[in-house]
This record gives sequence, C-alpha cells and structure tokens, in this order.
Amino acid sequence: MANEWATFGADLHLELRGTGLRTGLMDALREAVRSGRLAAGARLPSSRSLAADLGVARNTVADAYAELVAEGWLTARQGSGTRVAQRAVPRRPAAGAGARPPVTAPRPTAARPTYDLKPGTPDLASFPRAEWLKASRRALTAAPHEAFGYGDPRGRIELRTVLAEYLARARGVYARPDRIVICAGFVHGLMLMGQVLRARRVREVAVESYGLDAHWELLRSAGLRLPALPYDELGTRTEGLAEMRGVGAALMTAAHQFPLGGALHPDRRAAAIDWARASGGIVLEDDYDGEFRYDRQPVGALQGLDPERVVYMGTSSKSLAPGLRLAWLVVPERLVDEVVAAKGRVDWVSSSLEQLTFAEFLASGAYDRHVRAMRLRYRRRRDELVEAVAACSPETRVSGIAAGLHAVLELPPGLEPAVLRSAAWQGLALFGLNRFRHPDVPTTQDGLVVGYGTPPDSGWAGALAALCRVLP
Amino acid sequence: MANEWATFGADLHLELRGTGLRTGLMDALREAVRSGRLAAGARLPSSRSLAADLGVARNTVADAYAELVAEGWLTARQGSGTRVAQRAVPRRPAAGAGARPPVTAPRPTAARPTYDLKPGTPDLASFPRAEWLKASRRALTAAPHEAFGYGDPRGRIELRTVLAEYLARARGVYARPDRIVICAGFVHGLMLMGQVLRARRVREVAVESYGLDAHWELLRSAGLRLPALPYDELGTRTEGLAEMRGVGAALMTAAHQFPLGGALHPDRRAAAIDWARASGGIVLEDDYDGEFRYDRQPVGALQGLDPERVVYMGTSSKSLAPGLRLAWLVVPERLVDEVVAAKGRVDWVSSSLEQLTFAEFLASGAYDRHVRAMRLRYRRRRDELVEAVAACSPETRVSGIAAGLHAVLELPPGLEPAVLRSAAWQGLALFGLNRFRHPDVPTTQDGLVVGYGTPPDSGWAGALAALCRVLP
Repeated sequence: MANEWATFGADLHLELRGTGLRTGLMDALREAVRSGRLAAGARLPSSRSLAADLGVARNTVADAYAELVAEGWLTARQGSGTRVAQRAVPRRPAAGAGARPPVTAPRPTAARPTYDLKPGTPDLASFPRAEWLKASRRALTAAPHEAFGYGDPRGRIELRTVLAEYLARARGVYARPDRIVICAGFVHGLMLMGQVLRARRVREVAVESYGLDAHWELLRSAGLRLPALPYDELGTRTEGLAEMRGVGAALMTAAHQFPLGGALHPDRRAAAIDWARASGGIVLEDDYDGEFRYDRQPVGALQGLDPERVVYMGTSSKSLAPGLRLAWLVVPERLVDEVVAAKGRVDWVSSSLEQLTFAEFLASGAYDRHVRAMRLRYRRRRDELVEAVAACSPETRVSGIAAGLHAVLELPPGLEPAVLRSAAWQGLALFGLNRFRHPDVPTTQDGLVVGYGTPPDSGWAGALAALCRVLP
Repeated sequence: MANEWATFGADLHLELRGTGLRTGLMDALREAVRSGRLAAGARLPSSRSLAADLGVARNTVADAYAELVAEGWLTARQGSGTRVAQRAVPRRPAAGAGARPPVTAPRPTAARPTYDLKPGTPDLASFPRAEWLKASRRALTAAPHEAFGYGDPRGRIELRTVLAEYLARARGVYARPDRIVICAGFVHGLMLMGQVLRARRVREVAVESYGLDAHWELLRSAGLRLPALPYDELGTRTEGLAEMRGVGAALMTAAHQFPLGGALHPDRRAAAIDWARASGGIVLEDDYDGEFRYDRQPVGALQGLDPERVVYMGTSSKSLAPGLRLAWLVVPERLVDEVVAAKGRVDWVSSSLEQLTFAEFLASGAYDRHVRAMRLRYRRRRDELVEAVAACSPETRVSGIAAGLHAVLELPPGLEPAVLRSAAWQGLALFGLNRFRHPDVPTTQDGLVVGYGTPPDSGWAGALAALCRVLP
C-alpha cells in the first residue's frame, strides 16, 4: 500500500505544474478515480500518512479530501475513514476510454481541396487588421461602463446611429436608428424574420428560382412554405406575386440576384412594391453584397422605395469578414416591436465591444476605404477570370459579372455533372448552378457558380488554370 | 418652375457634404419625392437645364436620373421625359411623417432608479479594458486568415483548447476541446439544449424551487414542461427525481443555488448522478458564478463526477461582462453531434475575433488575475453588506453569502411587498425572493435578493444606506 501511494505521489508530482499543491492533489485524485486506479469503495490513506508520503502539510491533504467529499468524489464517515464514493467512477462509453484524441484533432472531413472557387466568402487575407485594432482601441477607451452589461436587444445605439447614416448614403436605405436591429449574422436576422412572419400567421414566403438552400431551409424550419417565383432576362418575375394567393412575404436579392447576378429591372422592383402595398405583404430584401458593383454605382436598395413594406437585410460578411458575425435589419415601423420581441425572448446579441468597434470603423471612414480597396481588387479578379475563360474556353459565356464576388459560367446542357466531377478530381472546390435551383423549378441551364473572392493571391493563377482545365 | 428648382438646388446644396455631387443629387431627389415636394407623375426638368441651374456637369444629372430610374424612383419614357414614378411616393403611417425623433432618443422606459441592487450583473466599471485590448492585439496579430471566415459551429479551437485546461483546473470539469461548444451567452446555450432535449422526445425538465423565470420560459417555449424539485436546508431534493416519471433532464445550480445561495449537499449531488445513470436522464449544470466563492475554494462542478450524464454550462457574463456574449457548454460525447446540429442549423457563433481575444486573455493569466481581484472586491462588498444589515436591522438574517454576487435577506412573513414598495419609492431597484419562486411552490419565505456587484464604488455607501431605510 505504501508503495502504491508513493507511486501515486510521483505521478501526482507531474501534475503539480503551476497550480498549487492542494489543487494538484485534487486533480490527481480525481484522475485516479476516473481512470479506475482508485476503485469505488477503496479506502484512502489518512491525511497524515499521505501528507508524510508526499512531503506536504497535513492540512493540504485534509482540505483536498474535504473538497472532494463536497464534490461527491469521496465519502467520509466517522469510523470508516475516507473512501472513494460508489458513484464517483463514471461508466464511460467504450470509445471514450483509452483513445483520448490530441487536443487540436479536427473532426474527420473530406480532404481539403487545393483551390477554392466556391462563392460566398470574401478575401479573408485582406481583413484590415491594423485598422480594426485601431477602431477596437478607440471603442474600448470610449465605451461607457454600461456597454459591458446586458444591452438593448436592437444593439448598441452608437452602431445603429452610424449605420443609419451609412446605409442612407451608400445604399439609399431609408434608415432610422430606432428601426435598425443588429443581428449576429444574416442567418440570425432571417431566423428572426421567419419567427415574426409565422407569428403573423404568414404561411408562405415566395422565393426566387435560384438562391441559397440554407436560407430556404431556415424559413421552412420556421413552418413556412416557399413557392418559387419564375425568372427571366429582366430578373425575378415579381408580377407573379399578385397571382400567388396565400403568399405573405417575398425573399429577394434585388440589387444582385444570387447566384445569377442580375439586378432586378425597375418594372419588377415596382411590381414587388405594388404587390406589397396591395396585399399587405412584406418584402425581405437580402442585400448581401450591395457594396460591390463594378461598372457603375450600385443600384440603391429596394427598401428606399417603401420603407414600410420592405425589411432591408445587410451584413458585413461579404464586405469585411463572416467571422465578425455582424448583420443588420432595417424594419418597417410596425414590425419593430415584433422583431425585438422575437430577438428578446432569447436576449443574446452580438458582443457590444464588437458593435462599438464596428461603429468606430464606420465612423472613421475606414469601412469606406476598405470597401473601395476591395472593389478594385475584386474587379481585377473578375476581369482576370473573364479573360482567362475567353482565352481557354471561348464558347463559355460568363454572366452576372457586373457586381459581387462570383460569376456564372454557362455550360452546354447536361455537362454540369461531368465538369464538377472533373473539378473534384483536380482538387478544385466548385459549385454547379443547379445546386442553387429551387426544387420546383425545372432545369433550364447548366453552369458553374465561380467565386473569385476566396483564393489568396498566391493561389489565384493556379485556381484559374485548374478551372480552365475542366471547362469544355 | 425655374424658381422652384433653384430653391430645390439650394436645399440640395445643404445635402452635399462630403458625398459627391451625383450621390448628393440622388439623395436630394429621393428626399424630395419622399417628402411629397415632388409628386407622383411630376415631370422633372431636362438633365441639361437642371445641370445649368445647379452649376454641375450634365452627365452628373443624367447619371443620377438613370440611377433613380434603375431604383424605381423615376421613370423615363421616350418622348415624355423623366417623371416621378407612380409608386415612388410611399404611403407613410401618420405617426412617422413629420416627427422624426432625435438619433439617440431612448425608448420610453421607467425612470432610472438611483441605486441598483438587482442581482445578475457584475461590476461593469471593473472591466479590464487595458488587458482586454492587449489580448485583442495579440489575437488580431496571431489569427490565421481562415479565422475571419465562417467557422466550426463549436467555436474556435484555440479558445476551446485553453478553456478545457482552465475548466479542468478551476472547476474540476472533465473537458475536452472537442466536447466544448462556444455559445453567444448562457441563454443561447440553454436554447440549444432545449432543442436537443425536445428532439430526443424529452417532455419534462425538472427545475429547482427557485430560479430565473427567463430561463424557464426559454425551455417552456421549446415545448418542455417544468415540474419543480423541492428544496430544504441541504439544497434541492434531488432524491425526488427518481419519483418524477417522465422527467428526462434536470436544470441545476449545484455550486451556488440561484438565488438562495447554498451549495448542493454531497448526498444530493450523488442522488442527481444516480438518477441520471439509472434513468438515462441528463443534468444541465448552470455554473453561472462558479469562480466566486469567498470562504473556501469553490466546490468543483458536478460534471466532473460523470461527464457522460452532465452538460456543464458556463459563461463569462458574471466573471467578466455580459456584453461579451460568451458562454460555453461541455457536452457528453453522445450529445456533441446533436448540439452541433442544433447550432449549425442556424450557423451563427460568437465573433471569432472575440473568441480569439478571450483565448489570449485566458492563456495569458489575465483572466485568473481578474477573477482574483474581483473575488476580493466582491467579498469586501459582501462583508460591508452583512455589517450594514447587522447594524441597522439586527433581526434580519442574511443568507447565501458564501459565494456569488448576491445575498438573500430574510424578511418576516408577509413583509416582502411592503419593503419592495418602499424601495421603489426610495429609488432603490431591488427584487423580492418570491419573484424567483416556481409557480408550483408555495410561499414559505419572504425575502430580498440583494445584488452587490452592480453599484459603482461612488454609489455603494448610498445604496447600503437606502437599503437600511427599507429594512424592518
């Protein structure tokens, strides 16, 4: 027994780095119980004898024993000494027993592709770290104490004030701070709107023929049905809304259809507003990359046309970084309380420090500078993509190139699956156009949706070359 | 007409600060339409004549017109010139028309009390701004590019790794990074667990006799019923779980019952684990302020006793600041995928920069230093509270003082409402004990739950004096 404890003491010594004797002893005892080296019911040595073995003060051992009794690892009964509690030894699932994976072990995933041309992520290497840190310093210095507390479910007033000014100026949004609700990403905002619509007894939300399945899934899981609006060369046929009985809202990417890339025609914009006014419906405007338009100024937001009928939904995920988890809704006056209630029931918001940092970043002009720099960069990327495709596959038409971070490469009918297989084989991560097609819309066009924001500069030429190898 | 436009031009000039002529002109035109100064159908002057009036290049005006046509504000038809579109003038609700509130107008709320002794918020004035900024700088410098992208729904691996080490050391939690899920606040984590339990067909979650109604409400809104466990001097009577048929989980504040303040007795800890093992149930351990214990070391987490039966739920809201919106779950192995799925369906997480900053803050030891400093501060506050009450109201028993940021002042039966009314009259924000009572539990005790973390140093003596004035 003495030997066993001496061994145990030696093990224990290994555990004592920087934590203090009592804590280290408690850790070692817990671990000994967990691992089964100390069995349930086993009697522990007296605190005096273990203290002598370990060369520590008796009180240290007695305190550790007392703590572990309080935690339920050990039991102490008058006359029977200190023992390992019966239920202290967990029944562990077989898999978890010996094979403890290393700390940074990633979950098993598919092999990482060499080149990533999936749409939806901006150039992460261009995140303006120094400017962000400056804004962060200013925010931390200026923040009132209450900023560190639980806040207004709409988000910090400082950010909503600056954002109202920015959205009016850059996107033609009719925004007032008291109608802005800061969200933890676009998806959070869409989830809130799904809840609000459902609570208003809306049962159907019209969506575009092409879009993001993840967004549709989110609305579906709120209990909404999602009929598709048809699409033609002028954009989504919003005239169709008037004939869709039972539809209470429409989700639209008006400035830059995702993924097809066109801007909604003025008549179609008008038709969407007309429908909303006539039916009491709500337009959800997903302005996901409104800042990036290359050949002329961005088309202003639909919301400006009728702020009482349109919920404007913006995000910094494309203009700055998805990792910030910052997005915003601009809501019609009559919906503000409902959105706040949906958000307030689960009262988390984005970190107030992050919100204040973003407010400083916007107010200082750093955001405008960043957007301008990125616009130049993405336009160059787009031009290089168009040139490369024209050179290597002259038959392939490239569309949706006036704006955004992606383009559509049209493919001859039936060719999409083969091209995607070939891309996978080349280590090229790429999405086909039909991945974004609404299930009720028949296939009319094969194609690729090529995101050009993601590859780092070092990998861009290689990504283009790989793309050329898979094109017909 | 020329005069009208000259006036309009003068107005316009006011709008041109820093935005550029074309944008300024567009803003002014939009505003003129919105305000009704330009009526639907009104014909605009030719671009040449307006350009001459304003002294700008003709192209500037022509571009602005073209943009506004694209946005749907104006229409341009061959032969009829440019006109204000019919639907461009929104029908505004009467309230919103003239009375635009100032930018920082708060929503109407009750008058702010002079002293705040509500529990639940730490001392916000002590937020370690300089240390946090340091951690933020290190995080921004060291972050890999991919940190700015969409991330693992469990949160950043850097934070989960440091947190696993911290939780094992400070709270006796058996934590592995791959079982930790970072949440945007405790409430987010509880919402996820509500979804997971509901998906597992759990219908009832046992809760304690006293707790936070907001948390119960969250579980109820996930479709769960919440029977109450009885409470006595040893804490929550977890033996009762074995008799509660249909209960699939139990929400517990084991280390420091909220709000009563006791630690769960070792036998009761054992009974909770026994029940979970025998029934396959899950214990949700709300370790909301586990770091703050004054008279001896904190009681280790229940989770350590059986990591496969207990979901550990921690947060930085009490130890640092609620405004950070950072919390964590440590989940049994068999639940990891389900929690990730619940979180992943709405794939937002806390900001990755904030997570990396917190990881640096933990790893550098700044968190331990902060917790130690705050522990001393809160203990002093607690001692001053106990002394003040002993001096001014010797009959009033103060309990739940061994830990945390609040104490319970026991009141003679029936006195609670009168004391609360008197407090409100004194400008003292204060909660009664019965506010936290489960609706099924009969009133057995009147009291006050006094939070001593919130008042700034300058207001502390005044808050104590005000409290003394309302005590019997």
